[in-house]
Amino acid sequence: RLARRGAIHVVDWQHVQGITQNELSMPGQGVAQLLMQFEDLRAADVANAMRELPVKRRMEVALALDDERLADVVQELPDDDQVEMMHYLGVDRGADVLEAMDPDDAADLLGELPETEAESLLRLMDPEDSAPVRRLLEHSPDTAGGLMTTEPVVLSASTTVAEALARARNPDLTPALASLVFVVRPPTATPTGAYLGCVHLQQLLREPPASLVGGIIDKALPKLGPEDSLTAVTRYFATYNLVCGPVVDDEEHLVGAVTVDDVLDHLLPEDWRDQEVAGQ
Amino acid sequence: RLARRGAIHVVDWQHVQGITQNELSMPGQGVAQLLMQFEDLRAADVANAMRELPVKRRMEVALALDDERLADVVQELPDDDQVEMMHYLGVDRGADVLEAMDPDDAADLLGELPETEAESLLRLMDPEDSAPVRRLLEHSPDTAGGLMTTEPVVLSASTTVAEALARARNPDLTPALASLVFVVRPPTATPTGAYLGCVHLQQLLREPPASLVGGIIDKALPKLGPEDSLTAVTRYFATYNLVCGPVVDDEEHLVGAVTVDDVLDHLLPEDWRDQEVAGQ
Repeated sequence: RLARRGAIHVVDWQHVQGITQNELSMPGQGVAQLLMQFEDLRAADVANAMRELPVKRRMEVALALDDERLADVVQELPDDDQVEMMHYLGVDRGADVLEAMDPDDAADLLGELPETEAESLLRLMDPEDSAPVRRLLEHSPDTAGGLMTTEPVVLSASTTVAEALARARNPDLTPALASLVFVVRPPTATPTGAYLGCVHLQQLLREPPASLVGGIIDKALPKLGPEDSLTAVTRYFATYNLVCGPVVDDEEHLVGAVTVDDVLDHLLPEDWRDQEVAGQ
Repeated sequence: RLARRGAIHVVDWQHVQGITQNELSMPGQGVAQLLMQFEDLRAADVANAMRELPVKRRMEVALALDDERLADVVQELPDDDQVEMMHYLGVDRGADVLEAMDPDDAADLLGELPETEAESLLRLMDPEDSAPVRRLLEHSPDTAGGLMTTEPVVLSASTTVAEALARARNPDLTPALASLVFVVRPPTATPTGAYLGCVHLQQLLREPPASLVGGIIDKALPKLGPEDSLTAVTRYFATYNLVCGPVVDDEEHLVGAVTVDDVLDHLLPEDWRDQEVAGQ
């Protein structure tokens, strides 16, 4: 079908099939070339591509990626491959990569490791990064407290709508995390702020930029507790057609937010990443 | 705990327990009073409250609600209660309420009814409303084609960012549906437009209002096909941390969009709405 279209036809890397696996394991396919191919891919697709590589090449690529990008890719690997990757990286680089991961993904990974190994990694991490991970590890992984991220958008009531929108458009946020901003009494860092309510992104779009978020807080949105089960969290999202929800402790502190993608991860069978991905 | 707080303490209706069920079935609790209480509640909470009412009172309330609101509430009822409600409303009002429902929810409901009954209702509906429902009914309910909504935000490439944002902030859209706008060659009504790609809400927030969406289309986002299974759709969302995705047919027409809340509805056991909702 492509034959008559002209001399050059650019196809998405993910659509290249058949030649890919062979090419990738050929000596001619250098690490630099692979890194270039990976540049424009989504982390999940890089993770899939890396799993097709011979172990040696896979690890060369891992070493060549910077901490941030490697962290994004490791998050998308199946549990077993994550553990293998940490063993290969060693504790020093491993701790750097864990620092760059989302705290909930880092906690999930550490939960798969022997306790002593997890503890060494946590000790090597910057305390600022390890503290939220340690908090998450206190919760069972299939509760709201274990599923949540500790880094949603948290604002004080005196923040303007313009600033709130600027925070929500941050490309590092998933669509689910960007859909709600949370309002607390300062300090705004989880888990210390007293929860006041949330503001929906669509609501922010309907307000004048100079308004304060304090004036448009949704106080009625039901909250999750850290001990709520995976089933309870799933029903919560399905009932209210939400993709993100606040997790608030008994003292009314905002301790984090659960997003629906984390719930899906846990609803799927453990080996789901090993199977072919749909929609390609 | 409330005793010393002062003379008047307003609690959310959903937090009122114990007295509620009795009160609601008392003759003194008129329909008008109930409607007033329901006014500020989310549709899911009204649905739960209505299920607690004696049948007679429940139906009086249903008759008193306008089509739009009743449609929102019916969408949140368990399947069996939806069917019972349709029987009580009769075909004429039933068709009006179905017209006001989201096409995918209307299709789910009609799928629960005997075929002849579903057909009479479809015939009574405005063809503009029944056409998308008929299209959805052609697909198995646990495929992307059956799960999708036919009413995502669809724009042409010459739409400005400002206009796209104005469309996305529509309060009738769920957070998931608002997270992505789709770009097609006109006509923009599903299922006729040729799919060009999508634009993420966060991306729209990062662009000057006068820019055209045609310049910022994400063409690389993997697409779903109408026949993709529930499992494939679930993995798609989990892999790419998405909450909404385009469904495109073999001729590259955008036929609809699947949102993660619809996926959750189908991942939960059939009777999930009969159980206590979390987070209250």
